[in-house]
Amino acid sequence: MNSRVGIGLLGLGTVGSGVIQIIKEHQEELQHQVGSPITIEKVLVKDVEKQRSIEIDTDKLTTSPDEVISDPDVDVVIEVMGGIHEAREYILKALQQKKHIVTANKDLMALYGPELLKAASENQCDIFYEASVAGGIPVIRSLVEGLSSDRITKIMGIVNGTTNYILTKMSQEGRSYEEVLAEAKELGFAESDPTSDVEGLDAARKITILANLSFATNVDLEDVVVRGITTVTLEDIEYCEQLGYTIKLIGLAQRDEGKLELTVQPTLIPNSHPLASVNDEYNAVYVYGEAVGETMFYGPGAGSLPTATAVVSDLVTVVKNMKLGVNGRSITGPLHSKEMKSDEESKAKYFLRLHVKDETGTFATLTSLFSKHDVSFEKLLQWPIKGEETAEVVIITHQTTRATYEEIYKKLEELDIVLDVKSTYRVEGGN
Amino acid sequence: MNSRVGIGLLGLGTVGSGVIQIIKEHQEELQHQVGSPITIEKVLVKDVEKQRSIEIDTDKLTTSPDEVISDPDVDVVIEVMGGIHEAREYILKALQQKKHIVTANKDLMALYGPELLKAASENQCDIFYEASVAGGIPVIRSLVEGLSSDRITKIMGIVNGTTNYILTKMSQEGRSYEEVLAEAKELGFAESDPTSDVEGLDAARKITILANLSFATNVDLEDVVVRGITTVTLEDIEYCEQLGYTIKLIGLAQRDEGKLELTVQPTLIPNSHPLASVNDEYNAVYVYGEAVGETMFYGPGAGSLPTATAVVSDLVTVVKNMKLGVNGRSITGPLHSKEMKSDEESKAKYFLRLHVKDETGTFATLTSLFSKHDVSFEKLLQWPIKGEETAEVVIITHQTTRATYEEIYKKLEELDIVLDVKSTYRVEGGN
Repeated sequence: MNSRVGIGLLGLGTVGSGVIQIIKEHQEELQHQVGSPITIEKVLVKDVEKQRSIEIDTDKLTTSPDEVISDPDVDVVIEVMGGIHEAREYILKALQQKKHIVTANKDLMALYGPELLKAASENQCDIFYEASVAGGIPVIRSLVEGLSSDRITKIMGIVNGTTNYILTKMSQEGRSYEEVLAEAKELGFAESDPTSDVEGLDAARKITILANLSFATNVDLEDVVVRGITTVTLEDIEYCEQLGYTIKLIGLAQRDEGKLELTVQPTLIPNSHPLASVNDEYNAVYVYGEAVGETMFYGPGAGSLPTATAVVSDLVTVVKNMKLGVNGRSITGPLHSKEMKSDEESKAKYFLRLHVKDETGTFATLTSLFSKHDVSFEKLLQWPIKGEETAEVVIITHQTTRATYEEIYKKLEELDIVLDVKSTYRVEGGN
Repeated sequence: MNSRVGIGLLGLGTVGSGVIQIIKEHQEELQHQVGSPITIEKVLVKDVEKQRSIEIDTDKLTTSPDEVISDPDVDVVIEVMGGIHEAREYILKALQQKKHIVTANKDLMALYGPELLKAASENQCDIFYEASVAGGIPVIRSLVEGLSSDRITKIMGIVNGTTNYILTKMSQEGRSYEEVLAEAKELGFAESDPTSDVEGLDAARKITILANLSFATNVDLEDVVVRGITTVTLEDIEYCEQLGYTIKLIGLAQRDEGKLELTVQPTLIPNSHPLASVNDEYNAVYVYGEAVGETMFYGPGAGSLPTATAVVSDLVTVVKNMKLGVNGRSITGPLHSKEMKSDEESKAKYFLRLHVKDETGTFATLTSLFSKHDVSFEKLLQWPIKGEETAEVVIITHQTTRATYEEIYKKLEELDIVLDVKSTYRVEGGN
């Protein structure tokens, strides 16, 4: 097989254009690795006449998916069109015609990953999706191959660039959530409708994909407990800083006593933790393995060329497998059937900020409520608010279950001395 | 091939014991991935009778390398004995007998990597060496596969745990080099003879391996310009902190205008750079690719279990390749013949600390010397030293060639107003 390898592209947006650019500019290096030229044969677009930033023969453009999928010169279909139902349909059709698949589609892989992997395996085709999580960071490969001998127990990911940009700017520049979000929209770091990002859904999709790979299991998007960043205030960020913590939107997946826990929520991370210095729109995935201990993979989570790098690296693997005649044979099914930990069972430390009456006995009332539930404090700060008969209290608890914590929380709200529960967050990354 | 895969182990020190422990404890997961049980057949040791921390049949221990290499039940030889000449001899013999190789030996791979890769390829055997660089971090795999589609232009690695531990403790605890080195020896973070670590040789070996992989070329250990950390003082570290920088022992490999530059030296990194917060004995490799931009891989650089994780993950790949019948076919030769940039040609910013006479005109003399050589200042601080007629001057230059910088440096030493040139370091990671 020294003849050329033909590519069919579904979609020609930012990522698709990046893929064409890399294949063109790095052709010499790619040929050196795979031993054959790689050519773009057909590209599915919405509008053939549209002006484009990259050069491409209009002959190769088509508005018909079948012309891409059924082209006999197409060996590998690269899906970068996004969306769910059409993408799924086209990929399944392509697999039936023995085309290998590379996709950057996290929504699709989070919802239909197991189905697509099975279809690929049955057709002896490859399907790779490195670009679906954390753009340019080769984290899927690291989990599947680099750490294949280890037993991973915990993953914490900053896997949404928009929210990390917002939280970083709030923290570094002391600006409000609303102000930074508006700026992020202007700069193109946030969508005009940012719901999926700021409410944590995008991160939840990625953590679903990572959990299935890391724990060799079969979790669903609905297994993820999701809380967004819309309630994070500048005051919260400032108090956390005083305590030596940074607030990040963390996608967490962990295995504990055989049960899995999956959650996305704003989380306090100690400043000494490697995740705390992952700033702006950057992504990072922190992995804890029984044998290896702590590792972290850092890089750009999105963008045309970074994402295209992941896509084309997957393509290189597909082409190498084609030469070796081993496509579709690296797909392994899950080893463990899933057993989820309920949100109530999950254990963590918590940060809590309250406004209380500034009077004798307040402190004692608070400590007694917590100690009745066997929860002790790791940190407790209390100071008067100027000109009011109110004190600000900030607590970081030791580890407890969510159920216990919620019980305490409910009773706190009922206490006479408590004027207002301002905010609460999960705390990770300590001992 | 559902029968067992037999392992021969050369060496049973820290890493070897870790390999046996992981293969035993993670047997179920390993079998799930490769479809066969993995068994330890023979282990080369110095002393069969020695008490060991791990359980192993004494029948399997031998002091004869041939009993390991020639055992027909051994499919894969894992070399974790260290050293150079014997390890090389055994590996070459094993390859001739069609045994696949996994090694953790950076000294060997830095010196004889190309020879061993060629021998493996000729014998259709695999040779993998993930553990030779940055212990538990799957960085080799990320470079070879994850970023295979990109053109890497720069690598900066904190790849020596001992020196990173020393520099971290000096910086965080304000203790001297000698004091921290003594402590590191006691804690086992430094060898009793730490020369190879503190003089940068160990890091140079690793950067040689990384450069060959990243740039698809054939550099030698002698191509690396090496400077150690023995001259770094507490004062240097403190002045750097005031300027917003951290001193790290950085192994740097970069390609610029078609030429390669390789160096290991104490280097100032801005605190906002992801390498600056890699502390204690941890390692990290920062990679800059034309398309992907900045990525970083972080984790433990040494230790029994982390290193063994990398070894056993390589083993998993070997066994998968055995099942697919494709061993030895992923080895590609270099694409580019090496063209080195001389040390004089290399471009960088520099940090410089001087004691000068505290008198009018000093500042003007200094600036005029630098501007005569077309080198401008990014930062310049000057303040009097209490009770003396001396001032401390700290300069960070804009980018210049090493040749120009050395010319300035020589002339500085001859200047009347300059009492003492205290220290100078390369600066990286800015714009």
